[in-house]
Amino acid sequence: MKRLFGIDLGGTTVKFSIVDEAGRILDRWAIPTDVSDGGANIPGDIVEHLRAKMSELPEDEVPVAVGIGVPGPIMGDVVERAVNLGWNGMPLGRVVKAELGLPVSLLNDANAAALGEVWMGGDAEGMGGNAVFVTLGTGVGGGIIVGGRIMNGDHGCAGEIGHSPVDASGVRQCGCGKTNCLECYASASGFVKTANQLLARAGSAHAYASGKEVFDDVAAGDPLAIDARDITVEYLAKNLAAIVNTVDPREIIIGGGLSYAGDLLMGPLSERLGKYVFPGIRDRYVLRRAMLGNDAGLLGAAYQALLDLDA
Amino acid sequence: MKRLFGIDLGGTTVKFSIVDEAGRILDRWAIPTDVSDGGANIPGDIVEHLRAKMSELPEDEVPVAVGIGVPGPIMGDVVERAVNLGWNGMPLGRVVKAELGLPVSLLNDANAAALGEVWMGGDAEGMGGNAVFVTLGTGVGGGIIVGGRIMNGDHGCAGEIGHSPVDASGVRQCGCGKTNCLECYASASGFVKTANQLLARAGSAHAYASGKEVFDDVAAGDPLAIDARDITVEYLAKNLAAIVNTVDPREIIIGGGLSYAGDLLMGPLSERLGKYVFPGIRDRYVLRRAMLGNDAGLLGAAYQALLDLDA
Repeated sequence: MKRLFGIDLGGTTVKFSIVDEAGRILDRWAIPTDVSDGGANIPGDIVEHLRAKMSELPEDEVPVAVGIGVPGPIMGDVVERAVNLGWNGMPLGRVVKAELGLPVSLLNDANAAALGEVWMGGDAEGMGGNAVFVTLGTGVGGGIIVGGRIMNGDHGCAGEIGHSPVDASGVRQCGCGKTNCLECYASASGFVKTANQLLARAGSAHAYASGKEVFDDVAAGDPLAIDARDITVEYLAKNLAAIVNTVDPREIIIGGGLSYAGDLLMGPLSERLGKYVFPGIRDRYVLRRAMLGNDAGLLGAAYQALLDLDA
Repeated sequence: MKRLFGIDLGGTTVKFSIVDEAGRILDRWAIPTDVSDGGANIPGDIVEHLRAKMSELPEDEVPVAVGIGVPGPIMGDVVERAVNLGWNGMPLGRVVKAELGLPVSLLNDANAAALGEVWMGGDAEGMGGNAVFVTLGTGVGGGIIVGGRIMNGDHGCAGEIGHSPVDASGVRQCGCGKTNCLECYASASGFVKTANQLLARAGSAHAYASGKEVFDDVAAGDPLAIDARDITVEYLAKNLAAIVNTVDPREIIIGGGLSYAGDLLMGPLSERLGKYVFPGIRDRYVLRRAMLGNDAGLLGAAYQALLDLDA
């Protein structure tokens, strides 16, 4: 059975794994990301760790390809830019391939997580179909799977659903430069901000520090927390409906910190989404939580390497 | 050079064509659509006309495959339903193939138009990339091209972007059963309705009868008509931005009756879309009008047949 390196390159940690064709993670380790010198040392660090691991393994256990998830848009074997790493046009794929002599697949980290979730997070049926993956965490990220393959987009930006407009009465500045993006309202911090605005409007001196705190109050039946939840779900459902009507997916997968609220989020989201989705699609998709946490990115990167081998 | 039958099956007319690999329409004819008996005679009528044409042609000019665009969702060689034809689960592809012995490709009519426009309406570069096609006509239809191929969706409904929600202050009932779909506001009739609501609110006894009349007043600088145009463009731009952020296309193509307004529509749409699209995508796509009119569906159907031959 073939083995693949699956790598999740983040702004603070590089996570390495060895994954087999059945999606089992056989080995894993991590190193800090060296962001000094504009991230110039990162490719060398990755090569060094992969080479060391390869030299330890018996020949039949050496991975045959490398997949790397990266926090930025990808075009071919080049990372267009990755703000967290200091990269601009870094030919990561070319460098690693030249050094190790293994095929290297690059993919955006949200896309990697989407692919990993579709591959190993649900039923195996998912691989031939379409899926929409959304993370509600620090930001709002997304990945779109079409026919079991990542949709990368013509400029490496497909699935940037966190930056679609929301019709809100106030104005929130987004990190992308625009205002009132979905991310300003449906990220964990956006959700907390909405709840705190409701608190302030009600004359309360209290302020929430995390999405979990708000959801704890939702669970306790607090009307204000429930309002904040419902406002957030409404924005999310309207945006998600436009995506679902575009992609007509088999699966809609919700990940990130807010997804840990479970039914307190997923119940109302399912109801509101059903209201806004085209009737020919409604009730025909599976809406579910992400299952794999941080492993999704490792598995998706490895799976992309496997797909590219077979292509 | 291979020749294909490209067919556009509509509720009133069946349009036939013979198209070559270079996208030239070499022959065309049409018959009325026989919607009696729940549309039961339509497959036979199509077979009869194709067979008659094939018998007339010298052997080297006989088309080698058939593509048929149909007004409804497609799954494989079955038309799931087509309200205008009275069809429910009609195995059109299977029937035509069995009778003629030619490969038959079925596709949704909006998808056929999208594929035709990408193939022959712009530069040839379009075929490897993603595209979003929107028609603003009687309704609002759409087709999504990913990597030069139609995205059909898991239930044949991908590209149903006319039925995504719009944040409007009023309530309009959509034919799909929902309220306040994009189609209620950005179709030709939705646009006229918006203009007439503004007229009524201004105390005018006048009422527009067509989108062209409203655009004639826009061209003349009439502030109320311009308001109606701007409201319509705003709804369209917000919805379209969510789709563009999802698909990250090379081309965005606007067709249908309203698109004949040209720059009066496309100018403001380009400006508003730029405001709402993710910065990594902004300014990197081509936004253009559809070029092929009714021929788009014929060409797209023929091209799909060609693609399926080579697959």
